Amino acid sequence: MPSAMREGGRLLVVGGVAAGMSAASRARRLRPDVEIVVLEKGQDVSYGACATPYYVAGVIEERDRLIRYDADFFRRERRIDVRLGAEALELDLRRKSVTYRAGGTTEATAYDALVLATGAVPVKFPLPGIDLPGVLFLRTLEDADIIKRTIEAGVERVSILGAGYIGLEMAEAFSARGAAVTVFELLPNVLSTYDPDMSEIVERELLDQGVILHKGTRVEGFEPASGGDRVGYALASGRRIATDAVLVAAGVKPATALAASAGIELGATGAIRVDARQVTSDPSVLAAGDCSEALHVVTGRPAWIPLGTTANKQGKVAGENAVGGNARFGGIAGTNTTKVFDLEVAQTGLSSASAEREGLRVASVRITAGSRAHTYPGGSPITVKLVFDADSGRVLGAQMAGREGVAKRIDTIAAAIHARMSVTGLAEIDMSYAPPFAPVWDPVLIAASEAVKKVGRSPGARG
Amino acid sequence: MPSAMREGGRLLVVGGVAAGMSAASRARRLRPDVEIVVLEKGQDVSYGACATPYYVAGVIEERDRLIRYDADFFRRERRIDVRLGAEALELDLRRKSVTYRAGGTTEATAYDALVLATGAVPVKFPLPGIDLPGVLFLRTLEDADIIKRTIEAGVERVSILGAGYIGLEMAEAFSARGAAVTVFELLPNVLSTYDPDMSEIVERELLDQGVILHKGTRVEGFEPASGGDRVGYALASGRRIATDAVLVAAGVKPATALAASAGIELGATGAIRVDARQVTSDPSVLAAGDCSEALHVVTGRPAWIPLGTTANKQGKVAGENAVGGNARFGGIAGTNTTKVFDLEVAQTGLSSASAEREGLRVASVRITAGSRAHTYPGGSPITVKLVFDADSGRVLGAQMAGREGVAKRIDTIAAAIHARMSVTGLAEIDMSYAPPFAPVWDPVLIAASEAVKKVGRSPGARG
Repeated sequence: MPSAMREGGRLLVVGGVAAGMSAASRARRLRPDVEIVVLEKGQDVSYGACATPYYVAGVIEERDRLIRYDADFFRRERRIDVRLGAEALELDLRRKSVTYRAGGTTEATAYDALVLATGAVPVKFPLPGIDLPGVLFLRTLEDADIIKRTIEAGVERVSILGAGYIGLEMAEAFSARGAAVTVFELLPNVLSTYDPDMSEIVERELLDQGVILHKGTRVEGFEPASGGDRVGYALASGRRIATDAVLVAAGVKPATALAASAGIELGATGAIRVDARQVTSDPSVLAAGDCSEALHVVTGRPAWIPLGTTANKQGKVAGENAVGGNARFGGIAGTNTTKVFDLEVAQTGLSSASAEREGLRVASVRITAGSRAHTYPGGSPITVKLVFDADSGRVLGAQMAGREGVAKRIDTIAAAIHARMSVTGLAEIDMSYAPPFAPVWDPVLIAASEAVKKVGRSPGARG
Repeated sequence: MPSAMREGGRLLVVGGVAAGMSAASRARRLRPDVEIVVLEKGQDVSYGACATPYYVAGVIEERDRLIRYDADFFRRERRIDVRLGAEALELDLRRKSVTYRAGGTTEATAYDALVLATGAVPVKFPLPGIDLPGVLFLRTLEDADIIKRTIEAGVERVSILGAGYIGLEMAEAFSARGAAVTVFELLPNVLSTYDPDMSEIVERELLDQGVILHKGTRVEGFEPASGGDRVGYALASGRRIATDAVLVAAGVKPATALAASAGIELGATGAIRVDARQVTSDPSVLAAGDCSEALHVVTGRPAWIPLGTTANKQGKVAGENAVGGNARFGGIAGTNTTKVFDLEVAQTGLSSASAEREGLRVASVRITAGSRAHTYPGGSPITVKLVFDADSGRVLGAQMAGREGVAKRIDTIAAAIHARMSVTGLAEIDMSYAPPFAPVWDPVLIAASEAVKKVGRSPGARG
């Protein structure tokens, strides 16, 4: 545990998006006396990175809407010294100092406590042609600006590499802007954290919406358009597919270069190892957000699942502890949700496949039931897959898909996971009912009741 | 615990709506051999009683939609001997027999096990004029038919007595059918199970929708229209308010006459006392649904909160145990939700007021936050009131109101209540986030985080 920061000490934060600005703001609230400096490589702080696909789609019309508070706000209202365009180059743990480049000059700044919130960066594959103009990435707000400009310059056909959240949200965004979209996924299914019997629902939606989907397909490179220097073709399975732009959304990795080269320990996941107080292997250095691990409440082990909610929560904990507090981060259940065209999908805990990889004895049920009472118009089916321990019945995870009422229903199961409930306990929850909002047997309760029947009864179960 | 029912024994169920038909169906599934008889006073079984306001409103157009399975279905597919228009008159515990009247004749039927699912009946006040034509009640589907016919005969002004769920849902229904609605409530606020700082949000919505609301007002009686025999005026506070119809929705009471006169024990709530297996004071008699009590998971004591979900769950348990099973009902958290015009309101656990009546040391927070990310269009504010133990932080209850995303968000808190979580635990739940569905700090998490700050710090708190 780091000692309380000295009066007037300096907190340095590297990275000014979700985790970084949460840390800086929390520290300021607790300690009016300390100096707080934030180094942000880009030109924007504190923006809603998860909203960038909707900004590209035009659903969110104004860029300013993505920026809740700008750098001036933090400088003026919170006395946080935000330095934009400031790229951290080197961390010296012994001297407690970070060297960074800003505006063409390089300087060093000392710290009493350091919060690393360097985020994640897209995985860049060394594919032929990947540096061609028109080959796009989406990580920052500036990336989103580039994509918008590309669309506005005229794009009829887009190829997307990767069918994770970003890939699918961007498939919707490009479609909304009138482009024909082809999605390439190396794996056999979209949304790889979901089990195939759930991701197939998403795949049907993509096809229904006119997206061309190539699963289990490796993209081998890109070629410029004939007579131009911009991308014109994506190469896959020996074919040349004409395309006016390419979005590479084939995953991200934790941005750990600064930490690792300084000797900060990384975990088995490749992200920065932290304790529940967000402290790294160096007691004066904390880490939060997409660059760091988090304790998974189902496995009890560190995991790396980069998500905005986790970044905000970890940032708050890191900011508090950096100035001498003793906050703890409660861990993650891996809860996530997204909109894929007209479909809502959501997940919490482990999939069947990931639970099996953990060596657990896994059982699951999969049911479909209405989002509203059958009497009430406008409802639609929700499919719930519930994953549980075959012997004890402990809830391990869930996945859902449907046209309404999915995103927040998953939270009930997330709560059950945090509470280490069994499917019996889940089936007993007194869930709300009214015809416009739910059937008398909520889909979650139906899934749990079906699961209860299977506990201890699967082939080879004990007892 | 009742002994397993003999081969070919007879299960008698009194009442054929939610609890009764759930019990009968569950018993049939477990025991193909037993005889199952259901006595239903009305002409319909297994209908969605909670949907009747939407049937009156015209949102649900077809009456048949309210009846999932009719009597013939149960007779044919489940071999359940459903007797319609059969009113149970007397229960003889010693002889194990029920006397009932059907089609003008009276007969007795013996049972090996009896499930009482007699439901609840509207409280009828002995007000002058309450028997006038045009003074309506809503409990059964046949009541709803009468109300529809009354509306179709021409109703411009309606008075509603009682601002509980039924009263407010019917205010919306009558408004949808073009009537001007006046609501009278004896208590100082609408929705009396909510705290006033939450029910005031509902009151604003009613006023915004043109409903005239008289709170703290006792209706003294009704008078016929001049020159007619139908109701024409409601009398309140010395005024005569012209009205073409009156709906009395001033609460219900458990229908216990049959049970009580036979010597079955009632609980302190006035409803039939049952154990977790739904068995009454007579080991051959079980009770389920609105006529019976249920264990409240917050207070640990029996409560009477008549709701459709509880009726279905208890019915299933009673049906299983009546034929020799050993199912247990997990208790209620008092979770409920409704739509009041464009507002969703929901509640679980205890209100501040009810927690104080329980002698608990109560603290609460009340916050308002967006239903979606601030970046994403179309969101609206959700107000969350979280009630917790001032010393331990244990979550005792919650209430929410907003225009979207309320009904199913309450379930996360219901899960926390079942798990006996503290506000700290609730604040740690990894809730889902995506801009179209939630802000990065979900309103539930914001409320819980605010509550964490207050635990043990309220005036007079221990330690």
